[in-house]
Amino acid sequence: MSVGGEADHLTVENFLLSLTLILVFSKVFGELAERIKQPAVLGELLAGVVLGGSVLALIPATQGVIGYETFHLLAEVGVAILLFEIGLETDLKDLIKVGPTSTLVAITGVVLPFLLGFFSIIGFQKYGLLNLDPNTLTLVAITCGATLTATSVGITARVLSDMNKLQTNESKIILGAAVIDDILGLIILGVVTGLIESFRSGSESSVSILNIGFIILKAFGFLAVSIFVGNLIAPKMFNFFSKLKVRGLLLLFAISFALIYAILSNLMGLAPIVGAFAAGLVLRNTAQFNTIEHNLKPVSDFFTPIFFVTIGAAVDVTVFNPFVSENIQVLLIALILFVVAVIGKFASGFTIFQKDVNKSVIGVGMIPRGEVGLIFAQVGLSYAIFDSKLFSAVTAMVMLTTFIAPPLLQKLFKEGNDTVE
Amino acid sequence: MSVGGEADHLTVENFLLSLTLILVFSKVFGELAERIKQPAVLGELLAGVVLGGSVLALIPATQGVIGYETFHLLAEVGVAILLFEIGLETDLKDLIKVGPTSTLVAITGVVLPFLLGFFSIIGFQKYGLLNLDPNTLTLVAITCGATLTATSVGITARVLSDMNKLQTNESKIILGAAVIDDILGLIILGVVTGLIESFRSGSESSVSILNIGFIILKAFGFLAVSIFVGNLIAPKMFNFFSKLKVRGLLLLFAISFALIYAILSNLMGLAPIVGAFAAGLVLRNTAQFNTIEHNLKPVSDFFTPIFFVTIGAAVDVTVFNPFVSENIQVLLIALILFVVAVIGKFASGFTIFQKDVNKSVIGVGMIPRGEVGLIFAQVGLSYAIFDSKLFSAVTAMVMLTTFIAPPLLQKLFKEGNDTVE
Repeated sequence: MSVGGEADHLTVENFLLSLTLILVFSKVFGELAERIKQPAVLGELLAGVVLGGSVLALIPATQGVIGYETFHLLAEVGVAILLFEIGLETDLKDLIKVGPTSTLVAITGVVLPFLLGFFSIIGFQKYGLLNLDPNTLTLVAITCGATLTATSVGITARVLSDMNKLQTNESKIILGAAVIDDILGLIILGVVTGLIESFRSGSESSVSILNIGFIILKAFGFLAVSIFVGNLIAPKMFNFFSKLKVRGLLLLFAISFALIYAILSNLMGLAPIVGAFAAGLVLRNTAQFNTIEHNLKPVSDFFTPIFFVTIGAAVDVTVFNPFVSENIQVLLIALILFVVAVIGKFASGFTIFQKDVNKSVIGVGMIPRGEVGLIFAQVGLSYAIFDSKLFSAVTAMVMLTTFIAPPLLQKLFKEGNDTVE
Repeated sequence: MSVGGEADHLTVENFLLSLTLILVFSKVFGELAERIKQPAVLGELLAGVVLGGSVLALIPATQGVIGYETFHLLAEVGVAILLFEIGLETDLKDLIKVGPTSTLVAITGVVLPFLLGFFSIIGFQKYGLLNLDPNTLTLVAITCGATLTATSVGITARVLSDMNKLQTNESKIILGAAVIDDILGLIILGVVTGLIESFRSGSESSVSILNIGFIILKAFGFLAVSIFVGNLIAPKMFNFFSKLKVRGLLLLFAISFALIYAILSNLMGLAPIVGAFAAGLVLRNTAQFNTIEHNLKPVSDFFTPIFFVTIGAAVDVTVFNPFVSENIQVLLIALILFVVAVIGKFASGFTIFQKDVNKSVIGVGMIPRGEVGLIFAQVGLSYAIFDSKLFSAVTAMVMLTTFIAPPLLQKLFKEGNDTVE
């Protein structure tokens, strides 16, 4: 039997209904996407758009709506499990081998979009597309540039995984670059919020080389120590676990291992998914690797669509309606930012000297901004650096990069099939 | 990278940490329980007690605490998936075959505990253990009796499933009785809240035979129609689904099918788990049954511990401290209620005439009150029918019945191993 839920809480019925809609729509749209030779993840993102607040409004899609928090947390579990799964399929040695290449791609893919974003805002102001307070112009330009530096590894990794391309050199360079990108993003976020806060208080900026050095040290230190210590103890630990008898223990301990890495990663300021990915790299070296991967699959199937649907649900389609005159300006800004965002990341693939890799694949793999771009845009909004117009434009840019990458990536991989691998 | 969560919300770190603790503790305690020849579910319940608010307070265990809602919803998914899994392993024909027996067990197991609970309260008042307002005495006695009628099928079903005993006659009688019990519980809950509300408003009771008839009709009607229609269309539907290609579709559609049944069940006033169980009965008849069951297992492994840990976490161990003088009276009331609660359900097994079933197993299988008992107790508290003393005693009774049933059930099944089956 049931008792009524409280009005300001997510009731059991509403929660189960939203969850069911996410599961069903994600797979229906995923199937349709595959039918027209597009990646399933594109369908899942579109399922989110359809279910989201600006179309059917059937799932809680924006902050403040009842139940948003719960689905947001499940989405975090979803992307963590996805990156854990991808870590399990990735060899650490290969990742280290492409390390210098990945670093080059990551740095170019951060510096170039930043500069392009920065000067786009200056240009918008000059040519009257924006009418910003001259005092804050530089800060707005910096925040916008910072948003363009983001990379969402979740989107690309999912496409690569669905296409069975995780073992290619391109995939490894992209995954490595995405991890380094997260560290760089962390520094940028720290610097930008530091600048904003010192601008607010009128004091000197507290951002110093020492601070930045500390952030880098902490991030790389965590990765190095967690992978080293993990490789040392995990194989023995899981040998012991495999002797225990209670149902489901091995799977739940493997997932818990990934979640602990995700929590530590988050405490170190990195994204939880970086930790989950590292946990996968570590557990790949256990003797129980195959059982873990096999049993993880259905759990991943259940959770990952929640992440992609949630990303899609954040899209406000009303911004894209060209019949509302205010939107024209927003769309124009979004379009220009989108073009520079694509160019900036795409170019990063061409910094590589190696001949046996498909540079376009790497460039395109870095394009999607996804949830990381949304976090940056949210910071800009919450500090009132972005007004609602610029926030809409930046969000639209983030979404366009997120939606264009999967089909482009699939197309490029298919075309290069004979020459690469 | 990460951005700080709001203070009145569950942060990503805290959520992941609580989740990890639930997964790890449930399996550690489950393993320890099996080592001392006890059912794993007893370990999971104890893990909840340890993690809950009155011991380590590491997970949000009580209403109002930040994050409680999220884990409560995940627990609902957990028990729904468990009952779905058990439905998949149960043959509807067998269930119908034992129908009359189940009905007899369910009715006795409701009437007897109700009467025993009712007269216990009258006795407590007479002998000074309680000092209730004579005006509300009858109402308190009725509410307490109602709480004693509850049966938590989740606990028993889990033990039976872990022991591979779901195919025995005893299991089928218990499962059938539990479904009927839920319908009876629904009627009782409706009658009791109706009585309370009419007492409050001073008006005539709105509880009529017509109302009760309508509740029964709605519940049985839903079950009959959903199973009949499901059996008609599900095999064709899932034949079609199995032809689709996108990863995870079959599993997610099967889970969605169960969730839709759970939602409909809840809308009809029944527990979501009754619907999930019915969905399992239906999908058993699909050609994809084996694939569904195989892939559901890891998802069930992930979710069900959340349910059992949440039940355990609701225990307030401070009530059991005999060195606090106030507790003595509470404990005495709890103990007497516990004894009559056990007797009432245990006796229900002996209403059966069949010779080839272990009557004790059935009686014990009906004992655990679990989350259903907690819902009743919560109603009594929220309408201020139970004062905090009686609420503590009733909750303690619920917990004692929940914790005693799994080891007892296992013991009885092992003893009867040669004679039964």
